[in-house]
Formats: sequence, structure tokens, C-alpha cells
Amino acid sequence: MIIVLKKNATKEEVEHIKEKIEALGLAVHLSEGKERTIIGAIGDESKLSEAPLEALPGVESVMPIQKPYKLVSRDFKDDPTVIKIGNTDIGGSEIRVIAGPCSVETEALLIDCAKKVKDSGAKFLRGGAFKPRTSPYSFQGLGEEGLKYLRSASDETGLPVVTELMDPRDTELIAEYADVIQIGARNMQNFRLLSEVGKAGKPVLLKRGLSGTIKELLMSAEYIAAEGNSKIILCERGIRTYETATRNTLDLSAVPILKEETHLPVVIDPSHAVGRWDLIAPMAKAAIAVGADGLLIEVHSDPENALCDGAQSLKPTKFDMLMKDMRKIATAIGRTL
Amino acid sequence: MIIVLKKNATKEEVEHIKEKIEALGLAVHLSEGKERTIIGAIGDESKLSEAPLEALPGVESVMPIQKPYKLVSRDFKDDPTVIKIGNTDIGGSEIRVIAGPCSVETEALLIDCAKKVKDSGAKFLRGGAFKPRTSPYSFQGLGEEGLKYLRSASDETGLPVVTELMDPRDTELIAEYADVIQIGARNMQNFRLLSEVGKAGKPVLLKRGLSGTIKELLMSAEYIAAEGNSKIILCERGIRTYETATRNTLDLSAVPILKEETHLPVVIDPSHAVGRWDLIAPMAKAAIAVGADGLLIEVHSDPENALCDGAQSLKPTKFDMLMKDMRKIATAIGRTL
Amino acid sequence: MIIVLKKNATKEEVEHIKEKIEALGLAVHLSEGKERTIIGAIGDESKLSEAPLEALPGVESVMPIQKPYKLVSRDFKDDPTVIKIGNTDIGGSEIRVIAGPCSVETEALLIDCAKKVKDSGAKFLRGGAFKPRTSPYSFQGLGEEGLKYLRSASDETGLPVVTELMDPRDTELIAEYADVIQIGARNMQNFRLLSEVGKAGKPVLLKRGLSGTIKELLMSAEYIAAEGNSKIILCERGIRTYETATRNTLDLSAVPILKEETHLPVVIDPSHAVGRWDLIAPMAKAAIAVGADGLLIEVHSDPENALCDGAQSLKPTKFDMLMKDMRKIATAIGRTL
Amino acid sequence: MIIVLKKNATKEEVEHIKEKIEALGLAVHLSEGKERTIIGAIGDESKLSEAPLEALPGVESVMPIQKPYKLVSRDFKDDPTVIKIGNTDIGGSEIRVIAGPCSVETEALLIDCAKKVKDSGAKFLRGGAFKPRTSPYSFQGLGEEGLKYLRSASDETGLPVVTELMDPRDTELIAEYADVIQIGARNMQNFRLLSEVGKAGKPVLLKRGLSGTIKELLMSAEYIAAEGNSKIILCERGIRTYETATRNTLDLSAVPILKEETHLPVVIDPSHAVGRWDLIAPMAKAAIAVGADGLLIEVHSDPENALCDGAQSLKPTKFDMLMKDMRKIATAIGRTL
Repeated sequence: MIIVLKKNATKEEVEHIKEKIEALGLAVHLSEGKERTIIGAIGDESKLSEAPLEALPGVESVMPIQKPYKLVSRDFKDDPTVIKIGNTDIGGSEIRVIAGPCSVETEALLIDCAKKVKDSGAKFLRGGAFKPRTSPYSFQGLGEEGLKYLRSASDETGLPVVTELMDPRDTELIAEYADVIQIGARNMQNFRLLSEVGKAGKPVLLKRGLSGTIKELLMSAEYIAAEGNSKIILCERGIRTYETATRNTLDLSAVPILKEETHLPVVIDPSHAVGRWDLIAPMAKAAIAVGADGLLIEVHSDPENALCDGAQSLKPTKFDMLMKDMRKIATAIGRTL
Repeated sequence: MIIVLKKNATKEEVEHIKEKIEALGLAVHLSEGKERTIIGAIGDESKLSEAPLEALPGVESVMPIQKPYKLVSRDFKDDPTVIKIGNTDIGGSEIRVIAGPCSVETEALLIDCAKKVKDSGAKFLRGGAFKPRTSPYSFQGLGEEGLKYLRSASDETGLPVVTELMDPRDTELIAEYADVIQIGARNMQNFRLLSEVGKAGKPVLLKRGLSGTIKELLMSAEYIAAEGNSKIILCERGIRTYETATRNTLDLSAVPILKEETHLPVVIDPSHAVGRWDLIAPMAKAAIAVGADGLLIEVHSDPENALCDGAQSLKPTKFDMLMKDMRKIATAIGRTL
Repeated sequence: MIIVLKKNATKEEVEHIKEKIEALGLAVHLSEGKERTIIGAIGDESKLSEAPLEALPGVESVMPIQKPYKLVSRDFKDDPTVIKIGNTDIGGSEIRVIAGPCSVETEALLIDCAKKVKDSGAKFLRGGAFKPRTSPYSFQGLGEEGLKYLRSASDETGLPVVTELMDPRDTELIAEYADVIQIGARNMQNFRLLSEVGKAGKPVLLKRGLSGTIKELLMSAEYIAAEGNSKIILCERGIRTYETATRNTLDLSAVPILKEETHLPVVIDPSHAVGRWDLIAPMAKAAIAVGADGLLIEVHSDPENALCDGAQSLKPTKFDMLMKDMRKIATAIGRTL
Repeated sequence: MIIVLKKNATKEEVEHIKEKIEALGLAVHLSEGKERTIIGAIGDESKLSEAPLEALPGVESVMPIQKPYKLVSRDFKDDPTVIKIGNTDIGGSEIRVIAGPCSVETEALLIDCAKKVKDSGAKFLRGGAFKPRTSPYSFQGLGEEGLKYLRSASDETGLPVVTELMDPRDTELIAEYADVIQIGARNMQNFRLLSEVGKAGKPVLLKRGLSGTIKELLMSAEYIAAEGNSKIILCERGIRTYETATRNTLDLSAVPILKEETHLPVVIDPSHAVGRWDLIAPMAKAAIAVGADGLLIEVHSDPENALCDGAQSLKPTKFDMLMKDMRKIATAIGRTL
């Protein structure tokens, strides 16, 4: 940690800061520059994380040097993590597509959708049984019934199932039915939920919050990893910006940055980012080109009558065309899909 | 709801949209303008909230007219809600200050702090027993032990206690010790938690999320109210913007807008917004002037040794001075503190 | 325009609003809904743009229906604009790359760079002679000398030159040397400068401002078009968000949205968006996949000694590799490069 | 400057970085920590500002220590700058209000408005003769005619005039009529314009851009100061955020931060920030409480018929009431108005 002192910091203040740092077990290195004195705290920076160094008299600013995440970092494990799930995997050179409806509605619709997305090349089935909705008056999902439908669609097609967990009390229930547990954007910093899915041990798909920084996303992954579970798939799904032409702004630069910082697989959810089905294809193709390990795409056989997110769902035929287009780009960058 | 059609929308498309709306029980009003045809859907708009009108062929954009929140709106109840808590209240002409440490540490420290803030004029004691922390390696709070300390500090001083709930499984436990249950910024859209505190029936202090819009904050309050609990205090605590000079940007304009939209009391938390103790006083004074019904201020007898948020905690003497300054401004705007 | 009235709007208020609109030459259509009265103003909406309808008593909100831009919109001209510049063009099925150093330094370096980027397939040479710098103490560009070097590099290679105009007083000077006049992000709403380049009649490359909405970008293009010059290339170069891992956030979804709204060509500048050379390749490839008509890439033979933006400049060998990679993606999406 | 090296940086890379820094005339201090090697560059950091240190092999990140602004900083001049303008001043303990219409319309209206705001206690008259408008089809201001009306309103009332400069070619013209030259938010980084007003020597009111950081605002002020003109008034007028309930988000925390960083006076423009007349009073009162040296408020005798920004203009009677309210708050914080 680097502590920059105020121009007029007194000797007593400097001494006091030094004592504080040394008391926490770190060594102190003092550098008196032309304009400012700078203190370097050498040792395990995490011990300083609780100390309110910025509040000490004489301190102007504090700059951490060490990264706050450990287990999920490239420093800890350099080779990419490939997560095996059922008969498939994610994180390797093959790009995986996770497709399905926003929310589970009927068993027949779901199985039909699962078959179609499988035929087009999707390797995972997605679908929500518990839905986080902005309004208490909106459809909240079918609950356990939905989980059962997901399971039978999975049994029918062999596609592993990705579904969202919203409440720590449902962890066991969802772990029973799901192959991958999704943590939604609004729960990226629901720390209790993160610990629970860490303990559950199942693969986790962790979505970046609407205002989550890349660093915070990694810290949330660290919560899961700290419980001994490093089967974590990170997902960028658009961030909140001032632009209103799209629902959110898809931050594709998060992909190369995450790939540099962490060994975990990174996927893109263009459907939620843009919120309009006609923008999904170009963003999905860009996600392949930028280096994503997978995509999460909403597909619905009858978007007009979907109970949620119909406006951003692709029909199976459009999805099939998109898969073909994405496959060409995957080939162009030396990957497969 | 107003549906603006594309320039080249066909008759069949228009007919299809009309049928869709009428099937949901609303009346349709067609207006053919010079450049665009516009459809007005007249009736209960909430019935359309699930229909993906934007996805229908021929539709360019959809504009809701009715507000998505009901129970918390001024339309539903025009006179301001005054919430009685213990021997005090919030939402009336007296401005209330909620003060105390970020996290509960020892019983002695807490009681000392409670007495001091009471002497300075605070009417509520705040303190965290369960702490949401970005890092899994940071101090996570004392848990139930912390709740007990809060209770005894309250018994000692008569100040009602405000403390945070992070996990639906702790609702009963916290309801037992707390007078007001706080929902933190990161949980503003943790919808299950919102329903739980709604059911618990205790007064709730609901913080605006870092990227929560004012409309979304009101929808989250609606989740609580929909369970029959309208004892809700709304709290602005800074939003995430591009500016890095402060931790977050305190959006004081949220106060007059919320006062116009809702009958619920609105308080300001300057401590978390700015993240630096030396900026709290000016922002707190501005919060009084802008019309807030209360303030949430972090006070710690020994910020240097605080286990969390020391950098943004005021010492009791500084807090006392600030209370005096705020009181003058309260008087200037015709309120009391 | 749709005017939504307050619940308690009086008859007099409604009458007053009607008169106001009719006085401006529009017809009024009144629709009394269950909860709100809505007024539709039918006719040329631009006549209402100056009228402070929101401020009229009884008005709750005002929603424009017509788009504020005309000449640059797809409604005005549906087929894509292909701009011929020297022996090349932009806006057609061939993707064009504009490459070169951030700022012009020496004639020899520039000519060397121009030859190399041409060999790799770039069709335009970029380079700044007048540089907008955050600090008054930074290198501000070579001025006219730099323009001369650009001209000779262009004469040597046949590549048309793109260079920035910062000051209306330099318009004639720059028009003499440049083939395309660039308006930088910080000048997107420098309306006088926009009118000047409109009058100059040369092709213009207009960058989106750091906080410019897509609508505002189109309005700024309209300023140029309103002077009779519709040879405008729009450029997305990253917007300002809360994320600090990259300098700005590249908003690739702007490409499909702009392609839908306007007939003008759209290019992407990944170099300024990310600010780090190692992130340029993935973002450039994504830009091709998303459908951009061209790219603006900073190339410098000796980035370590560049007088500006060295950290985000590619060496010619890296640029050559990137061109090869981008060409494969262009082929995969059915375009050429 | 602190340069943090990558974990696997080689000796050759370290040596190369050292040479680079020493060649620029700074001393190097090497600190080999447990996890990372850190290089401190000691001396005049501005010499490094052009060097692309981040691009050197082995470098992970670069952290500046010195502030990039000099003349406008508290380090350079500690006591607050009080700027004398006509028979008044700004920056001292008296809070000054600058009031008037958005744009100058007729001489009679302007003189009437000037008299009324003077009677209410305003000390400066504002009004635009050259208006930056998003649309090329909107009213662009009266130009020189407007300047003449401003002059006569000033002669009539004794109020010094604040008006906007948009084009370097108009500098002399505006300097002839205006007492304070305003640089609008969209021109905060129009560096040529900044240099021009620096040279003109007249007091300048510099508005923060919609996405300008506090540091960038100070750098733009430095551009003016670098020309020998330090009569600069800084103005916060709302920043662009994701919230759409207000036009922009007024960042009142900018006031205490700017007062700490610079000796220049700081004023608040609530009218442009919120864009709605009914929100101006609470925000203006908050601006007084937070410590602003002045306010910029739009006042129009007939907002309904204003040619621009009518929706956010106060009528003279409302302005008069607001002045009375603000005066009470000024007294409460020990200042006068």
C-alpha cells in the first residue's frame, strides 16, 4: 500500500501513521519527495483493509498495490479453468451457448424449446423458475413446478440446466434440480447468497451487477471461491449508463480484462443488455469475436405470448440462423462452436 | 399506454396490435398523425406490463402513462406518512437524526456512543450487527451478539435501534431486537428480502441502490407495501457515477422528487455517499436545506480503531458541532431538529 | 407530441394548454382516460420544441413522437450513404481502416508509418496536427507543419488523410490539407465548429462525445447536414461510465442502433475507448463482427517514444497481424476488408 | 509517480524502465515488496506526463502523485481568490446571485427582468446572446443585438453582465459588452476557447461539463490561468448520470471538494441541473448550505413564452421568495446574501 501524505503533514503525524502500520505487522518505507512524503507499507496488505488510513491526520490519499482477490486471480492459478458439467464443459476452446426462455411457462413449451435450441447447437438449457421482477405485481415464476419442468426438459434432451437462485432458503431445492446455479445481476453483492452457493458446491453462473465494477465482480466470485467452490462462470450482461437507446450498455471490453485478471470462464448475455431482440444478433457475434467463452441467449417459441421478456426473446428460427453466423466467426478466430 | 408505430406499419400489423390490447381488456384509440400512427391503450395499464408490445411487428416504441407504483404514491395517499417508532416519530415537521457506529464492536463502546449522540440530539441509534462487505476476508459483524448490544444500548438511552437485515433467514431474529429494519443499498432489489420485511410488519429503512433509479426505489418500496406494511423510510445514500473524487455522488434532488411522488418519509445518508468524514458536515447541512425528513450519520468514538468505515465516521465532538449547525438551518427553513 | 396531464388538472388548465398548442399551428386531440387526461398534438412537432409545455400548469410530462433529426435519418433517405474520398470510399460493403499515429511528429516517421499501414491494408491515414490535450502543459501538436507532413505522406502513399479540426479559425487551413476533417469527442457539441465543417463541404468524421447520447450524436450530425454537407462519418469511441478498468466503455451497441436510425456510415475507434494497446485487438475484432463500416486505429512505429497516446498505439507488426485477423472476421460476416 | 510492476517483470524490463525515467531527469527509487516490485519516480512528474509508461513491458499500473494543476491549486495559493467585478465581487463571505433569462429576447423584457432581480438582491445579470442549442433548427440567440440589450440593462441597473462565449472569433466582441465571460458546459474542454478567454483577461465563469470530472474542470481552469488570467469562477451545473427523473444530477459534493483543492470561487447553477422550475428552490437552498459562493438562476417574467428553457425559469415573484429563503440559510451558516 502507498500512502501519500499532505504537503503540510507534521513529523508527529508521520510517526503516528508509521506506528499504525507497523502495529498491523507490515514494514514501513519512507520516501521524502520534492513535494510530498510517501509511505510504502510492505507486507500483507489485507491486514490494512480494515484500518481507516485515509482518516489519519496528515494523509492525503491511499493507493492499494495488491489485488483484493486471491483465489480467482491469475496470480493464484494461471491456466484457464475448464468446468465440466454433465456431458459438456465451459472454459475451453469450444464456445458454449446457453439458450432457453426467460421464464419457464409450461412443460410442453419448455421441452419443445429445449429440443430446438439443442438442434441448433446450444449445449445448455436456461430458464427461470424464480424470477426477480421489478414489480411485485408481475409474474414471479412457477417456483418448484418450473424446476421440475426444467429437469424433465433436461432428461429429454441431455442439456444441463442453468436456473436462478434468489433466496438462500431455496439453495438446496435448486441444487437438486439445476446443473448450474445462476446468481442474477441484482444479487451480485448479496453476500449471503454467494456464500450459500459456494457451500452448495455446484457450478455457479455469476452475473455482473448493473453498477458492478470488474473488480467487484471478481470480489463476489471470491466469496464463492472462499467457500471452496471455484466452478464459477462470470457473466457480463450490460451495465447501467446514461444512454437510454438500449436498456443497458453491453461492456464487451470486460471480456479481455477478465480473461487477463482471472482464470475463470467468461460468458456474455446480450439479451438482457440490449433488451430488444433485433439487436441480439450483432451483439452476440461481437461477443464471439471479442473472445467470450460462451453466450446466454433468450429463446422463446412464441415471444408475443411470453410471460416475461418477450421483447428480447429470439424465435427458434432466428436463433438457428444466429448460431450459424456465430459459428463462422468462431471459426474465423480459431475456436469452435 | 401510448404505442407509436413505425412509419411503414401495415394495416395487418395495426389490426394485430389492436387485437392484442383488446384481448387484455383495454380499449384502443387510434390516432393517425402526419408522420406516424399512434395507438392509445385505455384502461388498466398494469395488464399490459407482461405483454411484449415492443416486440410486435410494426411497433416503434411504447410509452407507459400510468405509474407502476400504487400504494406508495401520492395518488394513493396524499398526506405525508408519519411513522411512530418508540417514543419518537419520523416524517413530520421535526427532522430526525439516526446516529451511531458503522458496526457494533463492544457493548461499552456502543453504549458510550449512544449516550453521546443522544446528548447531541439524535433520536435513533444505528449500528450494524450483520455487515455486507465487498471482501469475504473483511470483518462481517458480530451477528446476534451485536444485536444484544444494540438492545442494551437502546434500553440504556431510550433510543430506538436501526440495524441492517441481509438474509431472509435472519428476519425474525432481527425483528426481535430492532425497532427499524434497514435494507441496504446492495439489497434494494433483493425482492425476497423486501417481501420478508413487508411481512415482518416492523418499520423499514430502505436504501436506494447504487444504480437504482428513483422509480425503482419506489417499486421496491411497493414490494414492502404490497405485504401490508407501509411504515417505510426511504433513504438516498449516493449513486454511482463516473466521478471518482467522492465514493458516490449524493443525489440531493432525489429528496424533492420523492416528496412529490410519495407520501413516505425521506432521509439522507451523507456518510456512505461521500466516504470521507470531512465532507459529511457540508452535505448534511445541504440535506437539511433540501428538505430531508432525517439523516443517517456514522459516529464513532475512536474512528482510527473502528473495525469498519472509520474513514467516514465522525467523532462525537464533531457530531455535536454538526448537530448545532444543522439545527440553525432547520430553523431557517421553518422546521425543528 | 403527447402531453400527459396531472390527475387534478383543471378544465381551465386543459383549455389553456390546448390554446397554446393550437396557436403554434398544431391540431389538438383530447383523450380522457380512467386515470389521466392525455393531449395529442398533431402536426409539425418541431414548432413545439421551443414551447415550455412541461412548465404549463396541469402538465405532468411531455413525450415527443417525432424524431428531432431529419436529414440524417433513415426516414429521409433509406439507402446507406457511401462517401467517395480520393480513390476509396466508406459506407459500402468493404470495411475501411483508418490508421496512423495519434499526433504527427516528424515527416520521416509519418511517411514510414503511412507506408506500413498501407501495406497492411489501411485505406486512410490518420494523424493529429492540432491536438486537444487535457493539460495546457502537454504537447499541443505541430500545427500547420504537421498538416504539411500529412499531405506529403498522402502524396507518397495515395492514402487520403483524416485530421482533426479544433477551432473554426483553422477550417480553411485544414480543408486545404485534409481529405476528411475530424471533429473530436470533446467538440461533438461545439455547434459553431459543426456549422463550419458543414459549410466547408469536405467529408467529416464526427466523434461521439464522452457523454453524448446516440440521439445527440445524430443532432450534431444534423448541424453539419443542415449546411448542405451530408458526407458525414459517425464514430463511436467509448463513453464515460463508472467503470475504471478501461479509460472509457466502448458502446458497440451504438453500431446497430445507428445503422437503423441513419443512412450515414459508422466507424469504431477502439484505441481511445480502451486506452491500452493490448485491448485494441479484441475490441477491433468485435467492431467488425458488430457491423461497423470502418475502424480508426492508432499505429506508431515507436510507441515508447510517442509524443502522445503511446500507451494505446499498436506497433506496425501488431497492426499487420490484427488486420489479418479482422479480415477473417469480415469474410465470416460476408464483407471484405 | 509510482510504477507498479507485473509479478513476472524481468530484470531487463526493470532496468529499461529505470533508464526511461532517469533520461527524463527524475530519480528512481526501487522497492522490492513481497508480491510486487514498485518504482518511485522522484522529481518533476509533469516531465513524465508524455511518456507512455503504462506501455512499457513489465509495467502493471502507474499512479501519479503530484496534481496536474498548479496555478489554480491551493498548494499554489492558499487564500481564497476574491474577484472584483464592477461594484461587486465574488468569492468572499457574501454569497452572490447571478440571475436573468436563459436567452436575451427584447430590450424591454430584459431591462424589466434586470430591475426585478436587482430588487430581490441579485448582484449580476445573466442572459445569453449566443445560445448553444442541441438542434440546428432551434432559436440560436440574438447575437450582437442581444449583447447591446445586456449592456443597456446593465447601464440601467448597475448589475455587471455575465454572458456566454461559444466561438473564439467572438471573443473581442463579447469582451466589449460583458463583465464576465461564460464558458458553457459543452465547451469545458474546448481548449482553444479556454486559451482565448485566458488572453482576453476578463473574469471567466467556467461551467463543468456534463461528464467532466472535478480534476478535468480544474485542468480546464488551468488553461485559462496559464494565459495569466486567474479571475475564474467555477460552476457546477449537474452531471450526466443514469437517473432520468432530473435532466442532470446536481453534484453538490463538488463544492466542498473544489473549495479544498482550489482557491477559486465556486458557484452552483441549479436551473440547468434539474431542468424543472419547481425543483430549483430546494436545490438552491441546499447549494447555500453546502457552501457555494454564489448561484446562477434563470428568471423570466413570462416563462410560458420564453424562447428557450422556459420550463426551468422562475417568475420574478418566485425568485423573490427564494431569495428571502436563501438569505435565512446564509445567515444560519454565518454568511450574508
